[in-house]
Amino acid sequence: MNIIKYPPKTGWQAIVERPHMDFSQLNETVSTVLRDIREHGDEAVKRYEEKFDHARLASLQVTGQEMEEAMNSISADLKAALELAHHNIAVFHQAQQFKGERVTTCRGVTCWQKSIAIEKVGLYIPGGTAPLFSTVLMLATPAKIAGCREIVLCTPPDKHGKVNPAILAAARTAGVSKIYKAGGVQAIGAMAYGTETVPKVYKIFGPGNQFVMTAKQQVSLHDVAIDMPAGPSEVCVVADQTSNPVYVAADLLSQAEHGTDSQVILITTSEKMLDEVSQEVESQLARLPRREIAAQTLTNSKLVLVHDKEEAMELCNLYAPEHLILSTDDYNQLAEKVVNAGSVFLGQWACESAGDYASGTNHTLPTHQYALAYNGVNLDSYNRKVTFQHLTEDGIRSIGQTVVTMAENEQLEAHANAMRLRMNNL
Amino acid sequence: MNIIKYPPKTGWQAIVERPHMDFSQLNETVSTVLRDIREHGDEAVKRYEEKFDHARLASLQVTGQEMEEAMNSISADLKAALELAHHNIAVFHQAQQFKGERVTTCRGVTCWQKSIAIEKVGLYIPGGTAPLFSTVLMLATPAKIAGCREIVLCTPPDKHGKVNPAILAAARTAGVSKIYKAGGVQAIGAMAYGTETVPKVYKIFGPGNQFVMTAKQQVSLHDVAIDMPAGPSEVCVVADQTSNPVYVAADLLSQAEHGTDSQVILITTSEKMLDEVSQEVESQLARLPRREIAAQTLTNSKLVLVHDKEEAMELCNLYAPEHLILSTDDYNQLAEKVVNAGSVFLGQWACESAGDYASGTNHTLPTHQYALAYNGVNLDSYNRKVTFQHLTEDGIRSIGQTVVTMAENEQLEAHANAMRLRMNNL
Repeated sequence: MNIIKYPPKTGWQAIVERPHMDFSQLNETVSTVLRDIREHGDEAVKRYEEKFDHARLASLQVTGQEMEEAMNSISADLKAALELAHHNIAVFHQAQQFKGERVTTCRGVTCWQKSIAIEKVGLYIPGGTAPLFSTVLMLATPAKIAGCREIVLCTPPDKHGKVNPAILAAARTAGVSKIYKAGGVQAIGAMAYGTETVPKVYKIFGPGNQFVMTAKQQVSLHDVAIDMPAGPSEVCVVADQTSNPVYVAADLLSQAEHGTDSQVILITTSEKMLDEVSQEVESQLARLPRREIAAQTLTNSKLVLVHDKEEAMELCNLYAPEHLILSTDDYNQLAEKVVNAGSVFLGQWACESAGDYASGTNHTLPTHQYALAYNGVNLDSYNRKVTFQHLTEDGIRSIGQTVVTMAENEQLEAHANAMRLRMNNL
Repeated sequence: MNIIKYPPKTGWQAIVERPHMDFSQLNETVSTVLRDIREHGDEAVKRYEEKFDHARLASLQVTGQEMEEAMNSISADLKAALELAHHNIAVFHQAQQFKGERVTTCRGVTCWQKSIAIEKVGLYIPGGTAPLFSTVLMLATPAKIAGCREIVLCTPPDKHGKVNPAILAAARTAGVSKIYKAGGVQAIGAMAYGTETVPKVYKIFGPGNQFVMTAKQQVSLHDVAIDMPAGPSEVCVVADQTSNPVYVAADLLSQAEHGTDSQVILITTSEKMLDEVSQEVESQLARLPRREIAAQTLTNSKLVLVHDKEEAMELCNLYAPEHLILSTDDYNQLAEKVVNAGSVFLGQWACESAGDYASGTNHTLPTHQYALAYNGVNLDSYNRKVTFQHLTEDGIRSIGQTVVTMAENEQLEAHANAMRLRMNNL
């Protein structure tokens, strides 16, 4: 771990710098696969499934029987955990329901917003050794609450053509309509364009490797919306002498085990805390099964000592972390100073893994400094706020002349005319 | 105008089809200019301003004196119109302020959202013969209400190096912090990367030609968020025997004058109305100064006769128009059936130009069927909803085991450990 004591502001940019992500060399490979899917539909999806996932698929859709088998094969513990996590995620996202009030902007003119669900959404869930079934809950639960008519999920099968049962169980719990066996670029293409069996959707959500990210970017240019740009996961912990170094170390390590490109930063006002956390990390690391990954991540991690809380929060806002843990006793004061972050965890009990799984907040969050301009997935991500307006004759009296004057000055005579005709009829 | 009577559903896709937009042949030109701006800053911006806008600029920023001159040079009528429009836009967007409530998802676990303004936003306003000062109000007013710290505006100067006074007056009215003389790709690059004088921003808003759109897409892949993908403007009017054919024709024409790529569709249940609107369009067209543009647009426009309102709204939702005018007496019933649209205008008095200028709704809206997944610019566009969570010891008791079970099943042992350590300390 890199220990940086009292860095001058001129050195801050280097501290918050993320590794450069440029997948443009993948563009051609990805666009070739996407074109193939667009032109050849199911046949091409199956061909790539055989090539990349070594699965020979007779059909792409997961059957009711496979679903039942999955529900029967997961443990009662996991089933109960899925249900509690789903409950909390549902409660939090349900509370985000929007009710637009009617606003009289001036006499006779009423405007309002109405939240309307996107009709068809697609969720992508990566495969691999660690099945991200928690992400199924995070993406499908708000889609269901929003009222999306069609919730499609694509996830790669194993070489026997089977989808991980925990993923299927989570999908069933959260209310996914249709599940297809497709991974990588071919899954993104199938949902963006539609095939004989996979429905075209209007927005695609979910994580993935660099091929999936590149494919999502490409289809987002013309064909479909996406949740947000993606990058490696990251955590920033702010600590002082009141923090618990054992917890802080555990939280840093929980991020570090994600992958070797993960980002881990501690900002602290206490040199003693810095030393203790550093020692704790070493000792906890030795006991972790994924210690090789975590250890490699830690070589890029930073423990930063700063003069005071002001400086800590300023550096933190410049970093704009995906996850921000304020592990101090004065977390309420620090929370007021947060400007740039994806999700914020307050106090010693709110560990990142609480929010990763079961507290109710969404874990699909902006990484790579995207928190400067983006928020994480929430209920709004599945809705559009459509504006409505109604005018009475008084409304025409209120704004008619203004519209005519502005339209004339923009040299849009037909715009002026549409209003003038109405003014003349009052 | 193309008259289509009782089209079978198999023919609907052809009716709603937008012209293909593919600006990929511009990609290389645009990326060359962007790279030049990134590497050479102000010098490159000035070089392109001289090349494309024929303006030799000593400095890029609009001065206080230029601002005063502009305020003095616009008419009192226009000034009053800007103020009324700004008032209504402010009232409507002010009412969109979000107040996140604290949600107890289960015992000891509290989660909430907080809306936090994006610190730095950039607005692009095109130049040309018709100065789009109304768009300045539409983009800057909500930015100011959201509380964006820095609101930067770029707009191209004329060949004398001057910015249109109405644009400056609108910027002053709405509270823009800094205005720079830069247009096209060089403006987008300047705001995406920052130069010696133009600040880097985190999100770029605003319309533009195909070069500007391509530049916004390119910088959105890595450097900065953008408001939404753009395409030609469009209106869909739903009419029946209760509609006023003179108004309907005027509304169609007000869209048609925007540009020859504009889209204009009438959907009606009344053949008599269709004939009357068609005749009215011809007669009003003859009196319009921009009749050449409007006439050319109309060659691509469609007047569609359908059997009933159900069919009308179904076709309309498939089209997903930017602007939707429900010009019938039963607009309230039809409004309930709207699923895909940018902004909806209800009744005979709510003409599109009301919303284009002064009713209070935003006129920056999703075109090109993007309304399927996007909404127009609103107060949320300038904010991020950051999630916060707090757990007590009871919170750990409520969700601790669930988190551990899920983390273990995802093979993320350090995630489980961060929670287990806390459970052991209860």
